[in-house]
Amino acid sequence: MSGADDLARRRLRLGMVGGGEGAYIGGIHRFATRLDNAFELVAGAFDVRAERGHAFAESIFVARDRSYDDFTAMVEGEKNRPDRIDAVAICTPNHTHFPIAKAFLEAGFDVICEKPMTTTLDDAIALHELAKATNRFVGVTYTYCGYPMIHQAQAMVARGDLGAIRVVQVEYPLEWMASAIEAQGNAQAAWRTDPKLSGRGGSVGDIGTHAYHLAGFVTGLKAQSLCADLATFVPGRLLDDNAHVMIRYEGGARGLLWSSQVAIGCSNGLRLRVFGEKGSLSWWQEEPNTLSYTRLSGAPEIIKRGREDLDPSAKVRTRTPPGHPEGYIAAFANLYAGFAEAIRARRETRAPSEIGMNVPTSADGLKGVAFVDAVVDSHEAKGCWLTPRFV
Amino acid sequence: MSGADDLARRRLRLGMVGGGEGAYIGGIHRFATRLDNAFELVAGAFDVRAERGHAFAESIFVARDRSYDDFTAMVEGEKNRPDRIDAVAICTPNHTHFPIAKAFLEAGFDVICEKPMTTTLDDAIALHELAKATNRFVGVTYTYCGYPMIHQAQAMVARGDLGAIRVVQVEYPLEWMASAIEAQGNAQAAWRTDPKLSGRGGSVGDIGTHAYHLAGFVTGLKAQSLCADLATFVPGRLLDDNAHVMIRYEGGARGLLWSSQVAIGCSNGLRLRVFGEKGSLSWWQEEPNTLSYTRLSGAPEIIKRGREDLDPSAKVRTRTPPGHPEGYIAAFANLYAGFAEAIRARRETRAPSEIGMNVPTSADGLKGVAFVDAVVDSHEAKGCWLTPRFV
Amino acid sequence: MSGADDLARRRLRLGMVGGGEGAYIGGIHRFATRLDNAFELVAGAFDVRAERGHAFAESIFVARDRSYDDFTAMVEGEKNRPDRIDAVAICTPNHTHFPIAKAFLEAGFDVICEKPMTTTLDDAIALHELAKATNRFVGVTYTYCGYPMIHQAQAMVARGDLGAIRVVQVEYPLEWMASAIEAQGNAQAAWRTDPKLSGRGGSVGDIGTHAYHLAGFVTGLKAQSLCADLATFVPGRLLDDNAHVMIRYEGGARGLLWSSQVAIGCSNGLRLRVFGEKGSLSWWQEEPNTLSYTRLSGAPEIIKRGREDLDPSAKVRTRTPPGHPEGYIAAFANLYAGFAEAIRARRETRAPSEIGMNVPTSADGLKGVAFVDAVVDSHEAKGCWLTPRFV
Amino acid sequence: MSGADDLARRRLRLGMVGGGEGAYIGGIHRFATRLDNAFELVAGAFDVRAERGHAFAESIFVARDRSYDDFTAMVEGEKNRPDRIDAVAICTPNHTHFPIAKAFLEAGFDVICEKPMTTTLDDAIALHELAKATNRFVGVTYTYCGYPMIHQAQAMVARGDLGAIRVVQVEYPLEWMASAIEAQGNAQAAWRTDPKLSGRGGSVGDIGTHAYHLAGFVTGLKAQSLCADLATFVPGRLLDDNAHVMIRYEGGARGLLWSSQVAIGCSNGLRLRVFGEKGSLSWWQEEPNTLSYTRLSGAPEIIKRGREDLDPSAKVRTRTPPGHPEGYIAAFANLYAGFAEAIRARRETRAPSEIGMNVPTSADGLKGVAFVDAVVDSHEAKGCWLTPRFV
Repeated sequence: MSGADDLARRRLRLGMVGGGEGAYIGGIHRFATRLDNAFELVAGAFDVRAERGHAFAESIFVARDRSYDDFTAMVEGEKNRPDRIDAVAICTPNHTHFPIAKAFLEAGFDVICEKPMTTTLDDAIALHELAKATNRFVGVTYTYCGYPMIHQAQAMVARGDLGAIRVVQVEYPLEWMASAIEAQGNAQAAWRTDPKLSGRGGSVGDIGTHAYHLAGFVTGLKAQSLCADLATFVPGRLLDDNAHVMIRYEGGARGLLWSSQVAIGCSNGLRLRVFGEKGSLSWWQEEPNTLSYTRLSGAPEIIKRGREDLDPSAKVRTRTPPGHPEGYIAAFANLYAGFAEAIRARRETRAPSEIGMNVPTSADGLKGVAFVDAVVDSHEAKGCWLTPRFV
Repeated sequence: MSGADDLARRRLRLGMVGGGEGAYIGGIHRFATRLDNAFELVAGAFDVRAERGHAFAESIFVARDRSYDDFTAMVEGEKNRPDRIDAVAICTPNHTHFPIAKAFLEAGFDVICEKPMTTTLDDAIALHELAKATNRFVGVTYTYCGYPMIHQAQAMVARGDLGAIRVVQVEYPLEWMASAIEAQGNAQAAWRTDPKLSGRGGSVGDIGTHAYHLAGFVTGLKAQSLCADLATFVPGRLLDDNAHVMIRYEGGARGLLWSSQVAIGCSNGLRLRVFGEKGSLSWWQEEPNTLSYTRLSGAPEIIKRGREDLDPSAKVRTRTPPGHPEGYIAAFANLYAGFAEAIRARRETRAPSEIGMNVPTSADGLKGVAFVDAVVDSHEAKGCWLTPRFV
Repeated sequence: MSGADDLARRRLRLGMVGGGEGAYIGGIHRFATRLDNAFELVAGAFDVRAERGHAFAESIFVARDRSYDDFTAMVEGEKNRPDRIDAVAICTPNHTHFPIAKAFLEAGFDVICEKPMTTTLDDAIALHELAKATNRFVGVTYTYCGYPMIHQAQAMVARGDLGAIRVVQVEYPLEWMASAIEAQGNAQAAWRTDPKLSGRGGSVGDIGTHAYHLAGFVTGLKAQSLCADLATFVPGRLLDDNAHVMIRYEGGARGLLWSSQVAIGCSNGLRLRVFGEKGSLSWWQEEPNTLSYTRLSGAPEIIKRGREDLDPSAKVRTRTPPGHPEGYIAAFANLYAGFAEAIRARRETRAPSEIGMNVPTSADGLKGVAFVDAVVDSHEAKGCWLTPRFV
Repeated sequence: MSGADDLARRRLRLGMVGGGEGAYIGGIHRFATRLDNAFELVAGAFDVRAERGHAFAESIFVARDRSYDDFTAMVEGEKNRPDRIDAVAICTPNHTHFPIAKAFLEAGFDVICEKPMTTTLDDAIALHELAKATNRFVGVTYTYCGYPMIHQAQAMVARGDLGAIRVVQVEYPLEWMASAIEAQGNAQAAWRTDPKLSGRGGSVGDIGTHAYHLAGFVTGLKAQSLCADLATFVPGRLLDDNAHVMIRYEGGARGLLWSSQVAIGCSNGLRLRVFGEKGSLSWWQEEPNTLSYTRLSGAPEIIKRGREDLDPSAKVRTRTPPGHPEGYIAAFANLYAGFAEAIRARRETRAPSEIGMNVPTSADGLKGVAFVDAVVDSHEAKGCWLTPRFV
């Protein structure tokens, strides 16, 4: 097993489960790992159809002997290699996250897992406990907290620029499932609308969890209770494709959360607005390089990524000057850079530097699954205010 | 009393109650009446301090003998004049709308009333019934349906451009009461935060009713039930200054409604987004001359006010070509132009022309008050789904 | 003739030449005169087809005996009436501005004239001299300086918020004449493309003059020299429909000016950007209620019309609070309010109040015509830097 | 030397000159090479201070024996290695581009060079001729043509969506040199303002060349003549920091070009607008994921990167779906992906695939230098219309 001293002279070695030919998010993970040169992808079980997986491995320069038939074989193959992977990235449908993560954690690997972390709350609890028990790092890819202006927003809230928070509005509308594309061969849509593969939440699990995490990430607020209304608009669909949630946060702030997969015209419209007693912030994922800030009675200011006067947490996640846009892959790469630093810091038993702090882990994954559970329960109880089990 | 034939050769004669020196909305009413030359302001009881009212009347060229000490004197003074006013505009705080409107209706005058129409549902019912019983016109100034692009949106929904409506998002955030200005001498804020003068609703009554009306106006949908969460953030305030409402519409559409008086950075941020199975629309009051429309899988299109291919209901409410912005006063003037035509049509016992159709009346005023009632009841019942009594 | 004392108790009486049925700008003038109640339209020669003009007069409540066959009859009819008009608004094609204005000035009337003031520089000089000789007011409707945020911009430049001005970018692109609509019965386009009716400038005369005036109005800079390139894109058109002008201002600032009548996608896209050594401003006519301001190294700020902290010159031209948009007609009405005050001040031999200061007059009209002349001369000289005769 | 068959099984090997610690653009090149895994950086002469360069090489995992003291040593060291670099990236100040590129070309390497390609037109001619004589690839990093929506725009123009082009407006305003930062230790600004290091152009060379290239790239138009006005606003600066250029294109289109380094509020504001007889396009580098398109008399449409219906040239340069923004580094990576394919295609004596077509080469570099020459000549001749020697 790689010792800490060795680590300083090389990139981290990454394996991947899922993410083969035609997969979407696996490719994004690979872009993200390469951008900052923090990871080197050296092993994988890329496809449930093993031969396709091997062909894919070759196409991306992964050696044949480290292209595995499945994740079990991968754990076995890697665990005793001297150049074994440092961490595994799990890019499979939701229902497989738990067994895969469990197997790798138990073999001593660090884990980077897509969200939602698991499809049931029990699994989420178990995984989070396992992470603690094994003393391994579990990063969960709440992508949007990788954006530098989200860190800027978090810092501004934390240092009091907005005063006490009153209202938190977060929404995540998408168009792409506005018709029954899951019945027309779209594999991405198919598993997202299958409760066995996705869990209890449809839009609320797939994107509502992102919105919920982002609101909590920026404001530092914990939900006290919520009241939800789910809807399924596309005929034949088995999970919600639109979710409305009213939230009461500890300390008295109130929020709305809207997630939708049927919002025609919205490409990836995650938007967060935070209103405090002294000021407000607004951020939209589709133009992520700016943050709008208004002081009480003041003129709105457009704060641009890349400025010298931003918070260190934003600056360390920035590669280009103002006006040279950074996008989604760069945000994803910031997560990976953070995961790398968190992993290195654990190995070297030291505190992580700025980039490795404040990265989403299994604790966040657990809260996300608990949120889905509470939303579905509230909806089924018709207007009941419920408290998520983990906040 | 003026006969119908006389009407064709003159502007309508208008009286006003309230709206004196320092009042805000009265001045807007006057701009609106003048813009299209439909009304001539000839009488008024402009101020509860009668002398101030008379001085104000003189300053705006209203003859001394038609500047009255109060609305009772005005009814008496006007009702037997051969050149009596055709209609009265009521621009006073909410709690006085009912008695004033009642007095003028009973004396045979048409009425134009600010919203919310009354402070209690009983009064709203009584006023609506009185309008029917006296066969008089009662217009209620839901200003925002005066915008031409709102009529365009309504027409597009009605003709099926969006298909069946699924989601309706409406919000009306304001900053202006983010601190306790009612305690610092701001008269506008003072009566809005006094339950005796405003009724049961704070933000939900003052602006939530606008948002609710606009959503119903554009979509044609009626609320089936709603579930609300009110909050009061400014210490000492007696009414809500932030309202979250989840709405289920007849036919299955779902909506969120947010009204806020503490949303720093938002000047007059009424925004409506409507998502159907075939397309979506988005409109923002602060840039009211455009409407964003997206077809399923299509590119967003920016539809501009003033185009030749707009619906007749939008074109008749337009004065300038595309790119020459029209604003809030023009929208208000469209309401007045509509009221004028509705009044003339009633007198002439004919159907109104396009501009006089589809104007907000006491039926809309009643629904607005019923909405406030249902919201407050739902909030007090903690998460209960309720049906407004009139929708 | 009306004495000054009488003036205080009534609106000004206005006559209009042109602006009859189907005319565009005449209607805008009428909206503008009514909005603030400063003028009352009581006389007119609305149409060269006299009978049409009389019918139109009746439709807008102008008495038959003050609806004249032509402007000569109007001068004669009005000049000896005890209730004669105070001023005349000239809303006719460019080539008639001069004779009409001359006739009214010589009869002692104040004049409000559309731009360009005349079609030749000689006429412009003569008219400006006549205004001085007769001691009468000649207002020229450079509409866009009626916008409150333009006054705010002017004040900010004047008080040094931008430091010394370096670069002035102004553009005025329009789509509406992108095809040969003048050959398809569009009367507005027909006279604008006829050198006999419009003068030497096509786009540069019709809209370039607006852009030039606006740049000078806000910055206070005078052109030192210019170098121009005109083009005519629509086949058969006799005047330029696209103009590029490089400008050197006194003091060293540089500017570009672009006017175009063939810019598809641009409705009324007048835009001004001013860059100084300490800050910059940007304003766009299609969203005129905001002004973007950036300090050196600062974050862009969105300054909204209606704020309490704006310059008095902006505040006096504002009717509604922030977020309640005001548009083109309101800007035009600000000009008329200013003209009214300038006229009253002249009569009362006093200085005008804020609203009447800084209004465009024959001096500005003269500069505009001199600009057109210099642009066309420079173009014809192929790249020559020329100085306009009046700046 | 690597044979073509070997190439298929590995990434291309890249060397870099310049781009060491503290350099800006070298880091961007490295991000770009990594994103798509097309190149592997294996050698370099990163710094004129050799020891700093070696330390930097180590920090980025470049082997010590391939970290060279200077570019001459690098040519010598690499040219006979069996694993010699395939290409060199030149990231040094302008005046060194020519000797470095010449040395590598003469040793048989392909070259990727920053712009402007050289500081004199003679050198540019010589380099372009040398590229042809050696049959080597010379890519020039006109970054902005790497954006997918720029390829979409080019395709739309080429297929006639806009009809014949009439007006081309391009501007590139920046704030960053609005004060004399070159005198305050800013190395980036220092060489850009030194004629010996930068050549004859200041803003026009540094960013005007980008704007000029972009306009030609999208429209396919060649400049017929131009007329320029340069200014230097910051005291003591030796080159222009603001340039205005009027352009006449072959075929009759007209254009303006504005470059500025003193435009406060503009971060990296490259904007291109193209107007044809049938439609128009608008694109802004700071929000590069959308392209605004308007048909004659149509509503503006917002075309989003990532859509299925885009041109293949845009789709092949896209990594993420609509709404997941891609930025500057991704555009740069598209250039590198194109260079890689162009280099492979040359080696394999085949035509490049889509990504390798239409990449900027020494021919474009030559045109850029010729543009700077013509602009400065025109300015010095005071308003003279000149034709660039290469267009």
